[in-house]
Amino acid sequence: MNNFNVSCPIPLDQYPQVLLAHGGGGKLMQQLLEKMVFSVFKSPDDIPPHDAAVINLPGSKIAFTTDSYVIHPLFFSGGDIGSLAINGTVNDLAMGGARPLYLSLGFIIEEGLPMETLWRVIQSLKKAADTANIKVVTGDTKVVDRGKGDGLFINTAGVGIVEHNQTIAPQMVQPGDAILISGDIGRHGISIMAVREGLELETTIESDCAPLHHLVLEMLNQGVEIHCLRDLTRGGLASALNEIAAGASVTINIKEKAIAVREDVQGACEILGFDPLYVANEGRFIAFIPQNSVNKTLDILKSFSQDASIIGEVTGNGTGMGLVTLESKIGSQRIVDMLSGEQLPRIC
Amino acid sequence: MNNFNVSCPIPLDQYPQVLLAHGGGGKLMQQLLEKMVFSVFKSPDDIPPHDAAVINLPGSKIAFTTDSYVIHPLFFSGGDIGSLAINGTVNDLAMGGARPLYLSLGFIIEEGLPMETLWRVIQSLKKAADTANIKVVTGDTKVVDRGKGDGLFINTAGVGIVEHNQTIAPQMVQPGDAILISGDIGRHGISIMAVREGLELETTIESDCAPLHHLVLEMLNQGVEIHCLRDLTRGGLASALNEIAAGASVTINIKEKAIAVREDVQGACEILGFDPLYVANEGRFIAFIPQNSVNKTLDILKSFSQDASIIGEVTGNGTGMGLVTLESKIGSQRIVDMLSGEQLPRIC
Repeated sequence: MNNFNVSCPIPLDQYPQVLLAHGGGGKLMQQLLEKMVFSVFKSPDDIPPHDAAVINLPGSKIAFTTDSYVIHPLFFSGGDIGSLAINGTVNDLAMGGARPLYLSLGFIIEEGLPMETLWRVIQSLKKAADTANIKVVTGDTKVVDRGKGDGLFINTAGVGIVEHNQTIAPQMVQPGDAILISGDIGRHGISIMAVREGLELETTIESDCAPLHHLVLEMLNQGVEIHCLRDLTRGGLASALNEIAAGASVTINIKEKAIAVREDVQGACEILGFDPLYVANEGRFIAFIPQNSVNKTLDILKSFSQDASIIGEVTGNGTGMGLVTLESKIGSQRIVDMLSGEQLPRIC
Repeated sequence: MNNFNVSCPIPLDQYPQVLLAHGGGGKLMQQLLEKMVFSVFKSPDDIPPHDAAVINLPGSKIAFTTDSYVIHPLFFSGGDIGSLAINGTVNDLAMGGARPLYLSLGFIIEEGLPMETLWRVIQSLKKAADTANIKVVTGDTKVVDRGKGDGLFINTAGVGIVEHNQTIAPQMVQPGDAILISGDIGRHGISIMAVREGLELETTIESDCAPLHHLVLEMLNQGVEIHCLRDLTRGGLASALNEIAAGASVTINIKEKAIAVREDVQGACEILGFDPLYVANEGRFIAFIPQNSVNKTLDILKSFSQDASIIGEVTGNGTGMGLVTLESKIGSQRIVDMLSGEQLPRIC
């Protein structure tokens, strides 16, 4: 495909500049990526864009992924930019069904960052890498002038190995698949907001930031048939469900009462005016699983968190655009749409 | 190695904050990386840090590398941040002796970046990727608030395949090795400074930004024994030579008259007070080659640039710290040291 010298595919009268919302995990970001990135870099043999690319090499199948971390503030309850940068990329590899093996590490440091802050983050990176059993093997450091960055941005790219023959991707999702979640939602986003807004909550809400690959590897190990996996980051559960529904062209129904939200998280969401369905997580994923593997999967997920549950199922072949509906606690049905922008900028 | 909760290995009374020079490719950057990064992430079986990590997988040997690009301005004569982000990472893979295959692409965009600028860069990325025959397979987009970035930063990580059994690394360098360079030096740095400083030069000096893997693959193809390769980026030829001399514990002697510097580049260097040996390049590399493969290598390099030449040789086993000396055009000898900081911040 040759896109050189064609005019910008985003209407410039409507969006002359990039907005914060273009990075927020919602509709605007999807539009930007689809029109300006995927359309340019997609080649005919590609499967739809997913958390990690799966690549066939002689003798090996690998997964490859990247994420930049621009979270503000750098440190928060339950984690920091270092643990986030390891776990986020580990989890993207895991969502491709891969065993995470190697990471690259790119620092973009703003001149004036306290040296001790950098050292704290490096220690956290090391600890998280050891916990996830992944090796940092290559890296890069850039420093930008004062006022041209924000303390520290980190990019990690990851390489993992795929040791099974399943295709784990949105297009494998089928009507009848159960949708499981690995725990309660909303803690990462709220923990960030608590620091950022100086919220005085009765309890400290810790981010759920954690590596998830051991759960996926255990599912594969126990022979679970996995149709699709997606970790819940920017945009939260609602965006992940919408992305899969659209990617798979299916309709999805979830039950509000099956989704665990801690009371303190729910309370903070009410104070802040957030819907927990859209709040970011960094240690939670959803799995689309055929009915014959549901019980086995739920057992594995519950070994990690008692809040793991079956939150709904794929109900039909959809409209081509995908549709997510929610049965509320009082039994009414509503559409769970994708947000246009984001609730919380720079959450990851 | 457990470095948790140990005090910061950089003396905080001396360097309480990160300086621009910590990213400049000179001594301060080496110190930062060695004390705070390599010491933490190095495991006993690692070879010394190099442009790309080489990883053994079942049936394949791959190279893996990353770089972030923070160049200012985004567009310059002979290239832009997009072509730089592709070629820089392609070249790091090539320096590991790998065939570049796959790239990841991470954007960190400052809110307010003109959409058209992003589109221009994306087109450039695509064109450079096609030229280098490498596929962008995964990516990420983050947006940071206005004043917390500088238009656009790009990270690329690359995966290549190593199809030979040579070890290409500083520790393979031996006394007697010839040192070859793939062309003239200094153009990238000067092209950036020309835009930044609004220099009115008689000729337009274009960056040398280019992919180099085809030269390395041709060397391997023709059976050249390669001891070490290094592309000349931040810190220029002088820093690359010093890094290899230190990594290999050897002494190196180069001849000034063998190093091509275009007259206009030399002139601009004099105006700006730069030494071309330290000015950045983005399409040049040096090769450490045993004498029996020198002629073959020179032929291959000259097919790319008539300015390719043999610039010197490895003269001895060194002091443990490495030493680089230069025979000047008038025959005197001087030491070519590593700069402490950098001549030009944000050159890549």
